[in-house]
Amino acid sequence: MTAVNHQFRLAARPVGLPKPSDWELTEEPVGEPGDGEVLVRIEYIGLEPAMRGWMNEGRSYIPPVGIGEVMRAFAAGEVVASNYEGLSVGDHVRGLLGVQEYAVADGNAVQKADTELAPLETYLGTLGLPGMTAYFGLIDIGRPVEGETVVVSGAGGATGGVVGQIAKLKGCRVVGIAGGVEKCEYVTELGFDAAVDYKSEDVMKALAEQCPDGIDVYFDNVGGEILDAALALLTRNARVVICGAISQYNATNGVRGPSNYLSLLINHASMTGFVFSDYLDRIPEALTALGGWVASGELSTREDIAEGFENFPDTLLRLFRGENTGKLVLKVAAD
Amino acid sequence: MTAVNHQFRLAARPVGLPKPSDWELTEEPVGEPGDGEVLVRIEYIGLEPAMRGWMNEGRSYIPPVGIGEVMRAFAAGEVVASNYEGLSVGDHVRGLLGVQEYAVADGNAVQKADTELAPLETYLGTLGLPGMTAYFGLIDIGRPVEGETVVVSGAGGATGGVVGQIAKLKGCRVVGIAGGVEKCEYVTELGFDAAVDYKSEDVMKALAEQCPDGIDVYFDNVGGEILDAALALLTRNARVVICGAISQYNATNGVRGPSNYLSLLINHASMTGFVFSDYLDRIPEALTALGGWVASGELSTREDIAEGFENFPDTLLRLFRGENTGKLVLKVAAD
Repeated sequence: MTAVNHQFRLAARPVGLPKPSDWELTEEPVGEPGDGEVLVRIEYIGLEPAMRGWMNEGRSYIPPVGIGEVMRAFAAGEVVASNYEGLSVGDHVRGLLGVQEYAVADGNAVQKADTELAPLETYLGTLGLPGMTAYFGLIDIGRPVEGETVVVSGAGGATGGVVGQIAKLKGCRVVGIAGGVEKCEYVTELGFDAAVDYKSEDVMKALAEQCPDGIDVYFDNVGGEILDAALALLTRNARVVICGAISQYNATNGVRGPSNYLSLLINHASMTGFVFSDYLDRIPEALTALGGWVASGELSTREDIAEGFENFPDTLLRLFRGENTGKLVLKVAAD
Repeated sequence: MTAVNHQFRLAARPVGLPKPSDWELTEEPVGEPGDGEVLVRIEYIGLEPAMRGWMNEGRSYIPPVGIGEVMRAFAAGEVVASNYEGLSVGDHVRGLLGVQEYAVADGNAVQKADTELAPLETYLGTLGLPGMTAYFGLIDIGRPVEGETVVVSGAGGATGGVVGQIAKLKGCRVVGIAGGVEKCEYVTELGFDAAVDYKSEDVMKALAEQCPDGIDVYFDNVGGEILDAALALLTRNARVVICGAISQYNATNGVRGPSNYLSLLINHASMTGFVFSDYLDRIPEALTALGGWVASGELSTREDIAEGFENFPDTLLRLFRGENTGKLVLKVAAD
């Protein structure tokens, strides 16, 4: 192997939005797979809001990325060398492969991607972390019942779009909250009953109009004022799913707590958090369900594809500016 | 009947702490019970933190007390006239009888109090709203398991003291948070494993020391900074029970939301609210359990008795100044 592997490593812990000096672009020879390992040439890297949390020091659901370490990322690519029985050269896989061009990985730690069912990049979106996150959070915590009203924020993003579509499949009225005309149009195309544009509308007023019977399930990806607006409209026994808080991840003067949390008290309602890794044992169930809906055409999928490995730092910032529609992925080699 | 009935009526909706001009002391002839009704001479009136919420306009779990209406209150007294088959003159009863000296009530709407089992005032505390609130919130939402760590705030109050004692009966390590040396001593007397004095200790640090394995169940009566400290120490799958937020009820510039709520996300934890009236159908279950523990001596009970009907407005303020230990009740006739 004489090929070169480029990597983005964490150079410093960001304060607020990550800045260029928080990253180091490194170069090293491509590694060689040992016993049971594969070498993957990465084609797509997923950009996740959760990445911001992984960059912070301190107690969380997984250890932080260490200073000097390759940035953690879900990525997908092609097996180019294999010492693992279950995978052959030419197979496509997805896994926690990092922000780099090539990764050596345990064969056990990656999942094969069926590119007949869906394009490879979809395995970072609807058939990847965001899709499974949507599935577990909605099904296990939101527990929507036919006829209920489900509201999801970040509805133009990868997770929110899947949440709303599954809620429609379950027979619910579904309202999505997204930022801007283009995203709201996308949300409507996905089959949501209504879209609320938080950039141009009074969210509280618009939600009250779109949810005349109140909100039975609120799936939150954003936190902040939007969470407070949804809390104010909960029905009795409502379920609030805390999946993320992208509005708060770069806050430098503390997270804003939901001041309407006493709506839980008066409504016998609950607010429950989760992360994808809480459900590792149920991945097959989620993939079977999501794959089935993709195959039948009941679940639409969309990726927002940026290009060029060197653009990783800027592309990540697009997430926090709310610029992506659908799953934001980075195509490693520009066309 | 020529006796006179005095009543405290709501004169204005308070801003912040209720002030004397928010009340009107009225006088009228004692009423006469109609068919199926009883006339009760009230002996004790319960002071509840929830009363503050009942005085506010707006959507809640029950309608607000109207301006000019007798203030809503749980009270206990003696039946002095009865047109209801199930109750005789001389029986003791408890119910939502209002802040007044005499009440005419539906016989169906009051519960007979067995003063052989416990003194009448206990039916406003451990065997009343606070005790049943403790029971439902802890058993149904907190769901403590033997060996777990349960933390309760407002531990020197009527609900908190029962929560901790039931949690001990369930085999848990129990830590109470209360304000001041006297209350912390009381909490320890009740059998809690430890007491944290929020007035003199760094709550976050003290809780971390007293809960080396984290907090599995947090029963919150207070909100504010103490809720945030508890959230920071949750274990995986922890349950936060939102029973009240006495620190926030008189806030004039908005409720402080829990900025550590994302601890729910990283711990797959839940925060669920409730009020007593969510569990009306399970009152017999609660009274059987609580009565059994009182009878066996496993559940201690204490009332903090103020005297004199005319002192109602001041007595209510004692709650919000955190001055009571055990259930705060007003004895209508001073000794």
